[in-house]
Amino acid sequence: MTNPQPLTKPLASYAHSRRVGGLVFIAGQGCRDPISDVWAGVKFDSTGKPVSIDFELQAHGVLKNVKAALLAEGLSLSHVVDVQVFLTDLERHFSTMNKVWNEYFKDAKNLPTRTTVGVKELPGLNLIEMKVIASAQLDTEF
Amino acid sequence: MTNPQPLTKPLASYAHSRRVGGLVFIAGQGCRDPISDVWAGVKFDSTGKPVSIDFELQAHGVLKNVKAALLAEGLSLSHVVDVQVFLTDLERHFSTMNKVWNEYFKDAKNLPTRTTVGVKELPGLNLIEMKVIASAQLDTEF
Amino acid sequence: MTNPQPLTKPLASYAHSRRVGGLVFIAGQGCRDPISDVWAGVKFDSTGKPVSIDFELQAHGVLKNVKAALLAEGLSLSHVVDVQVFLTDLERHFSTMNKVWNEYFKDAKNLPTRTTVGVKELPGLNLIEMKVIASAQLDTEF
Repeated sequence: MTNPQPLTKPLASYAHSRRVGGLVFIAGQGCRDPISDVWAGVKFDSTGKPVSIDFELQAHGVLKNVKAALLAEGLSLSHVVDVQVFLTDLERHFSTMNKVWNEYFKDAKNLPTRTTVGVKELPGLNLIEMKVIASAQLDTEF
Repeated sequence: MTNPQPLTKPLASYAHSRRVGGLVFIAGQGCRDPISDVWAGVKFDSTGKPVSIDFELQAHGVLKNVKAALLAEGLSLSHVVDVQVFLTDLERHFSTMNKVWNEYFKDAKNLPTRTTVGVKELPGLNLIEMKVIASAQLDTEF
Repeated sequence: MTNPQPLTKPLASYAHSRRVGGLVFIAGQGCRDPISDVWAGVKFDSTGKPVSIDFELQAHGVLKNVKAALLAEGLSLSHVVDVQVFLTDLERHFSTMNKVWNEYFKDAKNLPTRTTVGVKELPGLNLIEMKVIASAQLDTEF
């Protein structure tokens, strides 16, 4: 299966996804755009210094990257079974994350489990990162 | 299988548990009581402001919620294969967490693996959260 | 299968590894040496107080412990399918971690997925910890 959408360049020798048994592990996805190589929602000043970050745009950026990684395996968000959400400022961003989350995960029969924690740091300018496990054989719930 | 125990209300559209293949993923469990909707171990003053949190009661509350989520899948703690423990103050609470942990996980033949990290924040008034993966087919170790 | 290498003593009643279905879960591995029981890369003064920690030696120590835990299951790093990396100072140590990582994970056909987050604290004197999931049936990619 070919992937029509580009994937973010890994920062070391790891894979975007690994299929084992009926599970598909997806590497932690931040919001770096695979084409521009820039984090979603970041505004820079004329010297290239970041001056503001829009968390909501970042949350959409992360889920866009998750979708692309799933698509490379022939899967979609409906195949996701478990998600870990990492936020650098949980108190400030938790409710916005939930709002964006609910736009993407709507199928009441196929909702994933979720675990959200507030971390000290994420790579680059990410305020949010998601770690996803999907099922390759959703229909049968083998 | 019906669940005789109530489960904490999710904060967004995610599932308490997902069964895929022989594995059962459990959503991250804090210590919010499913009936009172209040975090375990928290004392409030007359204005409703939290004034103290008893970590040990919280650890028991988390494991009570984990057990309820497992029971909804017809499982018990003996089916747990992997646990991530998140603490907001690892240095202070690690030894108490280990003490409580050892009360729940005693079956030397079926101990889960465990990973403990100290995080910056957890949702609500939780000082501890656990992410659990269980096996639905423990006896056979299929 | 017997394990010729010693494993670090667990801090509570959990297992070093658990095999379920085709997956093998490994407990979070820090860099404590299983023989000396001392964290890798730490220098102590004459009173036993730690005075410096070499992160690069710690990263190697973690991967040495991961390899020992895999070996106890008859597996090697080539069976690893998913890794979570926890760093206490991501900004300072991320690039060194990537450098060490790339020395251990080279087989382009069998790279694991990876998720790296910066945490507030790790147990003991660990600046790095890894949580690993491996596949017991790699060749067939069952």
